Amino acid sequence: MPPSLEQRLSEYAGVAADLGVDAVALVPGPNFTRAIDQSFMSHERPFLLVIPADKPAAALVPNLELGSWNQVGFGGAVFDWRDQTGYADAFAALVDHLGISSLAVEGQVMRVFVHHALIAAQSSLKITDAEREISGLRMIKTPQDIAAMQDAIDISERALHRTLDSVRLGQSEKQIEQMLIKTLFDEGADDLAFNPIVVAGDGTAMPHAHARHDYKVKAGDALLIDFGARKNGFAADITRTVFLDHVSDEGRAVYDTVLQANLAGLAVTRAGVTAHEVDDVVTSVLEASPYADRIRTKTGHGLGRDVHEAPYIMRGNHMTLPAGTVYTNEPGLYQIGNFGVRIEDDVLITEDGYQTLTHFPKELMVISC
Amino acid sequence: MPPSLEQRLSEYAGVAADLGVDAVALVPGPNFTRAIDQSFMSHERPFLLVIPADKPAAALVPNLELGSWNQVGFGGAVFDWRDQTGYADAFAALVDHLGISSLAVEGQVMRVFVHHALIAAQSSLKITDAEREISGLRMIKTPQDIAAMQDAIDISERALHRTLDSVRLGQSEKQIEQMLIKTLFDEGADDLAFNPIVVAGDGTAMPHAHARHDYKVKAGDALLIDFGARKNGFAADITRTVFLDHVSDEGRAVYDTVLQANLAGLAVTRAGVTAHEVDDVVTSVLEASPYADRIRTKTGHGLGRDVHEAPYIMRGNHMTLPAGTVYTNEPGLYQIGNFGVRIEDDVLITEDGYQTLTHFPKELMVISC
Repeated sequence: MPPSLEQRLSEYAGVAADLGVDAVALVPGPNFTRAIDQSFMSHERPFLLVIPADKPAAALVPNLELGSWNQVGFGGAVFDWRDQTGYADAFAALVDHLGISSLAVEGQVMRVFVHHALIAAQSSLKITDAEREISGLRMIKTPQDIAAMQDAIDISERALHRTLDSVRLGQSEKQIEQMLIKTLFDEGADDLAFNPIVVAGDGTAMPHAHARHDYKVKAGDALLIDFGARKNGFAADITRTVFLDHVSDEGRAVYDTVLQANLAGLAVTRAGVTAHEVDDVVTSVLEASPYADRIRTKTGHGLGRDVHEAPYIMRGNHMTLPAGTVYTNEPGLYQIGNFGVRIEDDVLITEDGYQTLTHFPKELMVISC
Repeated sequence: MPPSLEQRLSEYAGVAADLGVDAVALVPGPNFTRAIDQSFMSHERPFLLVIPADKPAAALVPNLELGSWNQVGFGGAVFDWRDQTGYADAFAALVDHLGISSLAVEGQVMRVFVHHALIAAQSSLKITDAEREISGLRMIKTPQDIAAMQDAIDISERALHRTLDSVRLGQSEKQIEQMLIKTLFDEGADDLAFNPIVVAGDGTAMPHAHARHDYKVKAGDALLIDFGARKNGFAADITRTVFLDHVSDEGRAVYDTVLQANLAGLAVTRAGVTAHEVDDVVTSVLEASPYADRIRTKTGHGLGRDVHEAPYIMRGNHMTLPAGTVYTNEPGLYQIGNFGVRIEDDVLITEDGYQTLTHFPKELMVISC
């Protein structure tokens, strides 16, 4: 049985207690959605859920969201505010009700205007960034989480197969991107996990480049597609790099190096390995190759409700990775003005090893088109 | 000729000077994109552009974005940082280089972790929220901006026509939403401006509800669709409420009230009107009706690169609206447990009056399906 609202809120109260602060605050985003099992938009209107370590939770809610909020089944105090009167009074009433002196927030999600509104209401309030601890509750995925992610990944892979089947020389990157997006929704995506990266030729050398209207794919190009569907609140994040018509010796050698790095990372993946160890193994393969100067990124990041979340798979991060964590194994090599290759799997860590949730082939693929 | 990078940056330097602060900081988002004419993702990596009032601009850039960043043509100092070493040193070098004591930021865009990193690098730095002044530069749209918005709106309206043509009794809200999304991309959208709201029956009573898998539309339902395409960086934001098969007398009366409010707002729209005056006229129509207790929202908001941006069209906001502003005129009436109606146009303010960029019919529409 999934945990009740009270059980979920008590986890955040536990974070506050562990941190030695009076309360944790959540704003609309992945932690908020996980806590109350309903998603709200994050716009210009402040919306705040405060969970004290040892008192009932309280919320600050835009008046126009009250109808949706009432479906959450929240039993705590609610301070609503209207557009016409502003939110300063609601913040003042909230902090007066709470009587706290320290507050841990999600630094990667809460925006500065909410921080300022809290300080304006209570200048003595000590606000600390506890992104790691708060979002850390999402790191170990439940079987339901994993099933949702597998759905998102399966949808994404079906869309990728269909898109690659339709690629023709002379199409623009943008045309290929549009085909990918349409196919993702056709296969059942609720949303895009993020704006896809669909790049070819020299565009592949920039890890986060955008599809161009004016670049037509040509024979010999690398084509790099980094994308994912969102389904039932969870994200997929997959990259494959293929070659069009033919592949150069350099392309083949770089691809093989990246693939070996990806496989080396998988080989050491099991519960108890540290994020540092995984990245070190992956990056060492790249460093030992003739292409060491083309390294630009860490191995990867956690994946779940957010496309980028803990754990960050990089040297220096000595946290041990527990079973149930899902991370992206996405080594790459990039040379500006030439080309880049990235191969990205979504990997579930198990007690004995790992399970790749992505199943799209990783062997070097040269597409006749 | 569009303004050069130097000209655009000098506008932000002017904001700093006007505010009497040493510099303005931008993070990835609509202002950042406008300033440098290229968009970057906003993830766990801090990325910052600082424009002093009277010195050259400087940037803090994640190393993996340098390839894309170099295409911007930025001539100032760049402090890059790598995942493996973290960003603290880059922040320290940036503030040392800048030598500033006060900084205005976008409070609705910058997240707390960047605020904290700035303070960690320079504890004396005084950070103020200048969202209004910084984003205010985007309020008056250029002819190019308006052309991009018109494209986004035209795509959206074609998709809405096709979607409504395909609605059948017994479909779930989710099925109708998926049809809308596929059709938006088919018509040429680059992206969704936001997750569409597709709700029927009692779901229409909540201004920001989500499409349900388990609600099948039935004869007599109101069907409310609030959505928009994004095209070339600009968003559309349109709402229409239609009735399926037949409409009750109450539905007709509520619809007519909302339409009269929308039209009253248009009638007073011209350069020089205040946001307060527009909302007051619109809300007064709703207040004078038998449905005054169903009012839950202000009249609307600015529209451009962001779906919600200045000016906010509400009582108490006495800013005068200049020609070139685009705002949403979206009165609504909502009764929890019963139904809601919203009609939303995207309106360009001109010297003499206004021009609606949305052209989808607003007469009460009862769909045979």
